[in-house]
Amino acid sequence: MAYPIGFRYSAAYAGIRKVAKDDLALIVSDTPASAAAVFTKNLVAAAPVELARRNLQSSRGRVRAWLVNAGNANCATRTGERVALECVRVTAKTLGIEEQEVLPASTGVIGVEMNGRLVVDAMPELVAALRPDSFDAVAAAIMTTDTRPKTAFAQMKRAAMAGMAKGSGMIHPRMATTLGFVLTDANIPAAKLRGILTRATDRSYNRISVDGDTSTNDTVVLLANGCSGVRPDPNEFAAFAEGVAVVMETLARQIARDGEGARKLITIDVAGAVNDDAAAALARAIANSPLVKTAIAGSDPNWGRILSAAGNAGVVFDPAKVDIEMQDVLVCRGGLAARFSEDALKQKLDQPECAIHFQIRGKGKGRARFWTCDFTEGYIRINASYRT
Amino acid sequence: MAYPIGFRYSAAYAGIRKVAKDDLALIVSDTPASAAAVFTKNLVAAAPVELARRNLQSSRGRVRAWLVNAGNANCATRTGERVALECVRVTAKTLGIEEQEVLPASTGVIGVEMNGRLVVDAMPELVAALRPDSFDAVAAAIMTTDTRPKTAFAQMKRAAMAGMAKGSGMIHPRMATTLGFVLTDANIPAAKLRGILTRATDRSYNRISVDGDTSTNDTVVLLANGCSGVRPDPNEFAAFAEGVAVVMETLARQIARDGEGARKLITIDVAGAVNDDAAAALARAIANSPLVKTAIAGSDPNWGRILSAAGNAGVVFDPAKVDIEMQDVLVCRGGLAARFSEDALKQKLDQPECAIHFQIRGKGKGRARFWTCDFTEGYIRINASYRT
Repeated sequence: MAYPIGFRYSAAYAGIRKVAKDDLALIVSDTPASAAAVFTKNLVAAAPVELARRNLQSSRGRVRAWLVNAGNANCATRTGERVALECVRVTAKTLGIEEQEVLPASTGVIGVEMNGRLVVDAMPELVAALRPDSFDAVAAAIMTTDTRPKTAFAQMKRAAMAGMAKGSGMIHPRMATTLGFVLTDANIPAAKLRGILTRATDRSYNRISVDGDTSTNDTVVLLANGCSGVRPDPNEFAAFAEGVAVVMETLARQIARDGEGARKLITIDVAGAVNDDAAAALARAIANSPLVKTAIAGSDPNWGRILSAAGNAGVVFDPAKVDIEMQDVLVCRGGLAARFSEDALKQKLDQPECAIHFQIRGKGKGRARFWTCDFTEGYIRINASYRT
Repeated sequence: MAYPIGFRYSAAYAGIRKVAKDDLALIVSDTPASAAAVFTKNLVAAAPVELARRNLQSSRGRVRAWLVNAGNANCATRTGERVALECVRVTAKTLGIEEQEVLPASTGVIGVEMNGRLVVDAMPELVAALRPDSFDAVAAAIMTTDTRPKTAFAQMKRAAMAGMAKGSGMIHPRMATTLGFVLTDANIPAAKLRGILTRATDRSYNRISVDGDTSTNDTVVLLANGCSGVRPDPNEFAAFAEGVAVVMETLARQIARDGEGARKLITIDVAGAVNDDAAAALARAIANSPLVKTAIAGSDPNWGRILSAAGNAGVVFDPAKVDIEMQDVLVCRGGLAARFSEDALKQKLDQPECAIHFQIRGKGKGRARFWTCDFTEGYIRINASYRT
């Protein structure tokens, strides 16, 4: 696969997290790139989120650099705003660009003062190490409880697209959860990017759930630097938008699969609801149910929990018209137990991917797809000791 | 403590659950009692819930008997309605009362046909064993994954009140979760009971959360048989209502404490919100956060997760005005880390009860109290293998 041209990457260990593992990363576009971003809807938003939002506004969607650290969320701290600004300033100064062209992002623990000096001290080396082939090093540096880096790629004509994401816990489907970054060397105006990003977010990051919690630092950024010289004409925008959506879906699915403690990716398809919103509400209720997620962890075809979770979605449907399939095996027909071999299905559920189809019979055309993961003792182990 | 007079109780093993442990229970009032009930708001409601609702309406709130089984929810089954009716009929016939004076309730697995014959066969013995001092046997018989029976008592003048409940998983605060039963020998009209039960539910069963799932079978019933001869006059109703609320709060707290896998009861107090509804929304968001609940499991004073969970409540507040206490230790002052000894607080959190105070400074008078439990590996173990 081809990386988009005109971007350079760098990662380093600045000492922000205790373990000596890269915790500071920088992505730079050689020319000012058009940018769009979506941010957390948590009322408690971290200082770098507020600053990134402000910079994006004052630069009118022109971005040169993205600076991200792991190990500290820089949220709910006395010095949050000052530290975020300090990090952005040293980046701009070292790169010789405008402050407002730098977007900051942070991930890690909340409520612990972040030492901006560590970033300032690491900056010369970080900038010196910028290289076009260090994309994967950055994808690794932004990991926290992630067990593997998350990347995705696409190609449209001669333009390339590459995305990276981090996220494992605090994943909830009402917004762009986690950090995500999608780069392309196509030439797209910022105004156009915003619509493309919003629609792609709706079918990717807004369709995953790990634990129902929404972070204070969630940020997804889409950058288009135009370096390929490819400028989609109006009737090519749809294909470009589809490329963005596919990259983001691939990232989102990886986040769900790598949910804290997860052993299985669960894909939930709902069909036959009165409209897509109703279908999404049903899929979300099933994806968020701890009882459904623990049943899958135990490879238990306990479809009653799926039906019950749907019944709590706040959506009106007739339970007697519901068919449910697990791994393509019909387990519930018209709201009642179907005949199936429990032993055979248990074996099928004992796989790294699990599919749930929830179909309402009738004329409804509403459809939705959601991704989540099984809920295991590993989630508890990770989160009962995250800080300590 | 005194049990209300004029009630008799019985429990037996009818073979509905696999393990030989009482799974069928009956409570009978010697005279027709005034009754009020609240039922699940899950769209997928079990057959006994529908029948109990219907019987309560056609009898205009006059009840003689409550029949409950564990081991099978009688929900999403082909024969659900017929079996529920069969159980009610044999109860009425054996007791010599009207069918509509019997309220049925079931708890257990969803989607498995229930064998009504088991109830019919057990009924003669169950009725023959009715005794005024078997209250505790019934409280034990309705347990499923509960680790202990849940009972509560109160006394008003010469009238007595006794309550029992079951519930451990599928506990969510938007309704009367689980099965609950409150009996009194005071004389109160059914119309009055309904308002008393609704208000008491709002401050008890609607204020607990274990896993955010709402069952298909939730039922809480309040019966007043008048056998004590005590008839509260209008200005004594408030004291009576308070008694009901205290009994139900005590039961609700026991349910939260006995949450599946729980080691700790967490009490969450929110104050200073714009009104009580906003305070309840904040308390609910904190109580439902898996990250808060796993932090408490690990005795980790990770107040950032509490602030972040509140930020997702959909309630507007200023994070900079928030003070948070854990076990009466100030951990967050004005939205920022307070100075406290982490080691000392860890020891204080390593106790069976944990208190979280979330206070918004200012003029807001809204208050709410919620109960939940810590989230441990035991929850996963129980629910990954519940059916098998």
